[in-house]
Amino acid sequence: MEIALVGIGKIALDQHVPAIAASPDWDLAATVSRKGSVDGVESFTDFAELLERRSDIRVVSLCLPPVPRFDYAAAAIAAGRHVMLEKPPGASLSECHRLIDMAQAQRVSLYATWHSREAPMVAAAKAWLADKTLRRLQITWKEDVRRWHPGQDWIWEPGGLGVFDPGINALSILTEILPDAIHLTDATLEVPENKQGPIAASLRFAHPAGAEVGAVFDWRQDGDQIWTIEAETDRGRLELHDGGARMVIDGIEQSADGPALAGEYPRLYARMAQLVASGGSDVDLSPMRHVADAFLLGRRETVAPFHE
Amino acid sequence: MEIALVGIGKIALDQHVPAIAASPDWDLAATVSRKGSVDGVESFTDFAELLERRSDIRVVSLCLPPVPRFDYAAAAIAAGRHVMLEKPPGASLSECHRLIDMAQAQRVSLYATWHSREAPMVAAAKAWLADKTLRRLQITWKEDVRRWHPGQDWIWEPGGLGVFDPGINALSILTEILPDAIHLTDATLEVPENKQGPIAASLRFAHPAGAEVGAVFDWRQDGDQIWTIEAETDRGRLELHDGGARMVIDGIEQSADGPALAGEYPRLYARMAQLVASGGSDVDLSPMRHVADAFLLGRRETVAPFHE
Repeated sequence: MEIALVGIGKIALDQHVPAIAASPDWDLAATVSRKGSVDGVESFTDFAELLERRSDIRVVSLCLPPVPRFDYAAAAIAAGRHVMLEKPPGASLSECHRLIDMAQAQRVSLYATWHSREAPMVAAAKAWLADKTLRRLQITWKEDVRRWHPGQDWIWEPGGLGVFDPGINALSILTEILPDAIHLTDATLEVPENKQGPIAASLRFAHPAGAEVGAVFDWRQDGDQIWTIEAETDRGRLELHDGGARMVIDGIEQSADGPALAGEYPRLYARMAQLVASGGSDVDLSPMRHVADAFLLGRRETVAPFHE
Repeated sequence: MEIALVGIGKIALDQHVPAIAASPDWDLAATVSRKGSVDGVESFTDFAELLERRSDIRVVSLCLPPVPRFDYAAAAIAAGRHVMLEKPPGASLSECHRLIDMAQAQRVSLYATWHSREAPMVAAAKAWLADKTLRRLQITWKEDVRRWHPGQDWIWEPGGLGVFDPGINALSILTEILPDAIHLTDATLEVPENKQGPIAASLRFAHPAGAEVGAVFDWRQDGDQIWTIEAETDRGRLELHDGGARMVIDGIEQSADGPALAGEYPRLYARMAQLVASGGSDVDLSPMRHVADAFLLGRRETVAPFHE
């Protein structure tokens, strides 16, 4: 199937373009971007023009930041195209609900991707936790914003989510692997005095069986980068490291069962091919709802200004 | 039917107790409160004790602030009681989703009330707008916080919503009367330098047909209090004044059709009686989703400290 990629920035070039190139399902037929392009692929600067001139391309993947993305998604769905969204699926929850309604009305597939859910050991962690009683779970997500988001000013602006941009990846894994639904009860958001978005946050959740569930996100991490989820249960201890790439059970490193597709983005594109083939949609807003709850319910503390 | 009222504060005494007293459907059988009580009604200070000792009372109405309310609602549902929630239905969206799931599993009625939707002219405004094309809609909700929320410190704390506590009333009317779903695109939140909650906010929404939809909330209003929604359409202009108590169409004051129950809270209790009788639930989270979106997407500006 032919696919068009919209928004040729860092994440598109690092992840989407190689994943599409390696996929047996997809041909990259066109790009839309004000600046970027991909060698040998027809490029547009105007999305409306793509939709009009390339009616043969039935699927559109949107790699734009959340704030401008809604208008593109709405235009694509209105033009009868299947749509794949980078995370988070929107700048607001209400706009995501509108996209769901529009996709249903137009009978097209809508896929709100959560790339971290496709990390190698996430499915194994979910299977391991499924029959155990959780006692305690702690997320530690600490990275250096200068290294991972150089020059991305939008990430600090309203709608850019600040440290919740990586933090929502952790929450997407959490909501995937836990058998029970949780809800936020307390949050602290540390906001640099010259920014709108938080640079660090700590969250506490209520769990139906009373397990302690918490998260710490920090964008000021020097040295080792940490993307870890640790869970204590009635029958052992699970650790997910490196954002779900590695799993340790009771101190023993685990390996993935069976053949795994090479990487998160190839799996997302394989899933999108399935959804289009079956006429399905997959839009789970729970990670984003937790982030909205943290902004709604979180206590804000002003911290030192941040300069890239 | 017998009903228990939990949280005997200002809103309970001003609205809930008189509405229950005047209702042909309900008898106030017990209250739960650390401080308040109602003359001639059995009073508890411990909610668990009420649930255990008065298993004959099948319905519970919760007038607590949003942050502590979840634990009461969850305990009531777990004990098989039907539950009625003051607005907003929770301190977080995720906890509301959990209550919906729990109520379904327990087969009890859950009613997330929005009292402003029961204002006398809201249904008439909805009917009038149903067949017209909206061009512009503006909400102006300006009141004196000192007058309406004396001593309510929780309202300024995280989860208390600040000026969105009255603002969500306007949004509950807006989402009721508009035939189309909207979503927030821009917001500014003015936060006093000594408070967590905003004292004023302005919001802008996208409308599917391109109408301009906006809202201004302000808690610093001296003199006349303003709770107005003005809508311009292709065929005339609608004004809702006094929070939906009055409607003016093209300059002409309208009167309510047919017999109307006397007041917002009597209608809520009548609706709860219907829900319990029919085994239904009514939990519309859209007003709260717009508030969460405003906290998520809004630009914060620090303004002068507020002292009551």
